[in-house]
Amino acid sequence: MYKEQLLGKKTAVVGGDARQLVIAEALCKKGAEVFLCGFDQLNLTEPGYRKVQVDDIPYEALDALIFPVSGIKSDGDIKSSFSAANLNINHQLLERCPESCLLFSGIETSWTASSKREFVYLFEEDDIAIQNSIPTVEGILWLIIQDTDYTIHGAEVVITGCGRVGLTAARVLRSLGAKVTALSNNKSEIARMNEVGVKAMHLKDLHLCIKDANIWINTIPGADIINEETLTASHPNIFIIELASHPNARQRVLTGEKNIHYLEAPSLPGLVAPKTAGNILAKAILDKIIEKGE
Amino acid sequence: MYKEQLLGKKTAVVGGDARQLVIAEALCKKGAEVFLCGFDQLNLTEPGYRKVQVDDIPYEALDALIFPVSGIKSDGDIKSSFSAANLNINHQLLERCPESCLLFSGIETSWTASSKREFVYLFEEDDIAIQNSIPTVEGILWLIIQDTDYTIHGAEVVITGCGRVGLTAARVLRSLGAKVTALSNNKSEIARMNEVGVKAMHLKDLHLCIKDANIWINTIPGADIINEETLTASHPNIFIIELASHPNARQRVLTGEKNIHYLEAPSLPGLVAPKTAGNILAKAILDKIIEKGE
Amino acid sequence: MYKEQLLGKKTAVVGGDARQLVIAEALCKKGAEVFLCGFDQLNLTEPGYRKVQVDDIPYEALDALIFPVSGIKSDGDIKSSFSAANLNINHQLLERCPESCLLFSGIETSWTASSKREFVYLFEEDDIAIQNSIPTVEGILWLIIQDTDYTIHGAEVVITGCGRVGLTAARVLRSLGAKVTALSNNKSEIARMNEVGVKAMHLKDLHLCIKDANIWINTIPGADIINEETLTASHPNIFIIELASHPNARQRVLTGEKNIHYLEAPSLPGLVAPKTAGNILAKAILDKIIEKGE
Amino acid sequence: MYKEQLLGKKTAVVGGDARQLVIAEALCKKGAEVFLCGFDQLNLTEPGYRKVQVDDIPYEALDALIFPVSGIKSDGDIKSSFSAANLNINHQLLERCPESCLLFSGIETSWTASSKREFVYLFEEDDIAIQNSIPTVEGILWLIIQDTDYTIHGAEVVITGCGRVGLTAARVLRSLGAKVTALSNNKSEIARMNEVGVKAMHLKDLHLCIKDANIWINTIPGADIINEETLTASHPNIFIIELASHPNARQRVLTGEKNIHYLEAPSLPGLVAPKTAGNILAKAILDKIIEKGE
Repeated sequence: MYKEQLLGKKTAVVGGDARQLVIAEALCKKGAEVFLCGFDQLNLTEPGYRKVQVDDIPYEALDALIFPVSGIKSDGDIKSSFSAANLNINHQLLERCPESCLLFSGIETSWTASSKREFVYLFEEDDIAIQNSIPTVEGILWLIIQDTDYTIHGAEVVITGCGRVGLTAARVLRSLGAKVTALSNNKSEIARMNEVGVKAMHLKDLHLCIKDANIWINTIPGADIINEETLTASHPNIFIIELASHPNARQRVLTGEKNIHYLEAPSLPGLVAPKTAGNILAKAILDKIIEKGE
Repeated sequence: MYKEQLLGKKTAVVGGDARQLVIAEALCKKGAEVFLCGFDQLNLTEPGYRKVQVDDIPYEALDALIFPVSGIKSDGDIKSSFSAANLNINHQLLERCPESCLLFSGIETSWTASSKREFVYLFEEDDIAIQNSIPTVEGILWLIIQDTDYTIHGAEVVITGCGRVGLTAARVLRSLGAKVTALSNNKSEIARMNEVGVKAMHLKDLHLCIKDANIWINTIPGADIINEETLTASHPNIFIIELASHPNARQRVLTGEKNIHYLEAPSLPGLVAPKTAGNILAKAILDKIIEKGE
Repeated sequence: MYKEQLLGKKTAVVGGDARQLVIAEALCKKGAEVFLCGFDQLNLTEPGYRKVQVDDIPYEALDALIFPVSGIKSDGDIKSSFSAANLNINHQLLERCPESCLLFSGIETSWTASSKREFVYLFEEDDIAIQNSIPTVEGILWLIIQDTDYTIHGAEVVITGCGRVGLTAARVLRSLGAKVTALSNNKSEIARMNEVGVKAMHLKDLHLCIKDANIWINTIPGADIINEETLTASHPNIFIIELASHPNARQRVLTGEKNIHYLEAPSLPGLVAPKTAGNILAKAILDKIIEKGE
Repeated sequence: MYKEQLLGKKTAVVGGDARQLVIAEALCKKGAEVFLCGFDQLNLTEPGYRKVQVDDIPYEALDALIFPVSGIKSDGDIKSSFSAANLNINHQLLERCPESCLLFSGIETSWTASSKREFVYLFEEDDIAIQNSIPTVEGILWLIIQDTDYTIHGAEVVITGCGRVGLTAARVLRSLGAKVTALSNNKSEIARMNEVGVKAMHLKDLHLCIKDANIWINTIPGADIINEETLTASHPNIFIIELASHPNARQRVLTGEKNIHYLEAPSLPGLVAPKTAGNILAKAILDKIIEKGE
């Protein structure tokens, strides 16, 4: 890519965590002007940066507007790791952006769904989700090593869901010597797991696997798979890692009652490898801005 | 599965190779009656088998009719490894089957496309294609080991296409120590290759890779990727394996002219592992017959 | 193994960490009487346990005496994680043990070397060192994931030493997608690394590798490999993990001066997987006691 | 290495197969004069080559004398793939070589053992044996794919011996999806197999494993492991691959009587990858000649 490929472009980064800084830096390096909102605690002195309040962003002139990967909450609130102040956006502000302005968020929320504008949901793009599965799985390794007193090698691990994260997790854990069983109700996913050397079966056989499992990793969002019945069927010392972004609130109560080791780990990439995770997003955002400009 | 699950079912297996025998045996074991057509050279004495001529199949009574994985040729000809006689079917015969009869073939051909009846094309089912990629790739190993005087370990291998066969081939060859580069124009496939540890890039960069490659495996059907331009860009000692079922006739001429080691290997599973390949198909066929019966 | 295989045997566990508890428990389960010394902070109520002071151990009656894996310090001091009191042994006490009593320690120290009695140094047994490399390498993963902001996947990792830990580390890191270069001055070790798919070269080429490395893991004890020259040759952002039990004191100073990210991680197994690490030792100790009894 | 590093050196290559040609070519490229004996069927016109009879080799002037990897038979006979004539050497001829002349052979035989001169036995060097295990294992893959009608993926494979070839075979077959059990009576080898993810156990448990095995690969030379008792314990459809150079003659009889699929495959590297296998030897020979000259 040419160095000055985004020269003259105006972009804004609103809220987020360390990943957003990687994105801002990448935009800046390509020559774009970057308006930063929700980063007051940081001392950012690059010439291409301008810190602004949410009302002062030059929406009408923007080529791209980037929200956090966790999305915009139902009331317009935006999470920001580098600001103590409340960060909030409303639909009127957003509508001031020109039609040509690209809007990026990680996931769809009721706020973005009800917007008149279309968003690019980065985490719903298949290739980004696959790339993102790598830091996610390294985060899983980190949690397991930290929270157990045995090795991954030799541990019985059950993975529910054989999609993007499930396949990466199964492959990596197997290569570390774990005895992995992966479950899905998709025949193709089961076939691929088998090819890779991982024992795979239909989700309806979950109760057979968790009986003796040391670790259970759930990658299926909104599945209600961690419930009264499955927790009763689980080994009492099982360690459950829930990866879904918005886990069922009931799960925390149930596992608490049963005294089961349970951990919600919704956003591991930003936690364990913000730079790599930020680069994945930055590359995708730059590609889309440049594509649009062609 | 229950032993006698197909009791009372009538099925016919018309033409094919050793895989069809595995299918016939599986049907027989489940209690189905099996009419065999095009197997005159074999002495089959199982009580459930009946050898018949193509005109004598009781089409009206059939629950399933199974054609070879290579499909039915445009003129209705059917390949049969165990018969010297010509085997041919016409549309009138087929239409005598009841609506409920399942028709199986490996791939669509102009003959089956022009039929009034719907076929199950086994090789187009994603999960079967993934399972089938395993014997395909073992066949590739066999060809390489046989036809080269160097080891796979350390060889530079280029794979065009990162789909079902491409991913399996890349994973296996890398674990054998080959230096694999995989090419695709699908971003998700490239991301998955990278995750698995295989260098992956866009197909447009093919000329960069084949310059120094020892081996080039093409998995993209009908792609015209092996052409004047790419052959000129290839290393003169390259060994090209073409996996497509119906390779471009021009390829053979071109590689001959340029004295390039070129091999068409369209149906490796039936060649190197007929039993496993037959079992994959048998399981899929049985599942579909049983599902239908429920 | 029979349940009561150690019935009537008297053993003592003196000092140590969570691994020693696993050992004590294993001895107890086999029917041995276990004298525990240096565990005052724990409430151990198993019938086979007896907490004693170091002077009150019935040395004359012992079949086995187990010291911590970190060994006995030059002045006879013994590390104990579960006691605030000072724990010290002298040669006179030790000599009261009968000839037939097995003495276990992890590594040789000047104290044990000057003893009139022979020790079994568990960490010097090849098979135990290989088994122990597994929790060591999981500890390395944990450190890297925790201390870097990028993924292991894609990172350039240099490993000095291709022995027990080096081979395990290289294999695991490669399967996680790191670009690993392993260095040794042993031709056979280099050949094995190459077979496994890891780039391997002679130690004299270290300066070529660390120039661009993200991570450098040293597994060679007492090698003085981390020195002025190699630190100058290293990439300024390199992260160095030193696994040797007794690292060169100068290394810490030098890396501090150069502001290089440097971490000494001498006993990862006990830290990240005390149960597995304890089981490895317990199994070896039980085998030796039982062998002796036969 | 410098191009003319062996300028002025005189070497002789006596008998052998395609690997010897690779060695001769390597010597020639480095500037050595190469006397070739037993290659009459080949038209070799390189300026550095001289075809001679065994009596006409200028023994007194030689710096290196290279015999085939299969060694010299008890009567002095030497195998040669490229000559119909009988090739034979006697001790008197050999003793004409100067003390400084390096003598290379693959393995020790009674003839070389009874020689007054010392030989370098290339296949007994640990690093060469490890490198050579790679073409050996690719040869094993080739045999299995060719001789069975099922895939390696999913097959139950038993490997006796966990040394150089055993470890490579186990690692590769596992990565192809086979269910591998490796057996050894060496604790360290068992520990390494376990680390790599391969089920490993003591050789005394062989009868438990071969009961259900599809394939049994023996890597232990002269072990008499394939005998009446183990063949009776084996699955009747087992496929046995014997890798030892001089297998027990009784094995062939016994497996014949029991109608067991049995194959002796003593020198796979030269068969499936003569170029790689020759390069491994050539590199080792050059290194030793150059080392000596320094």
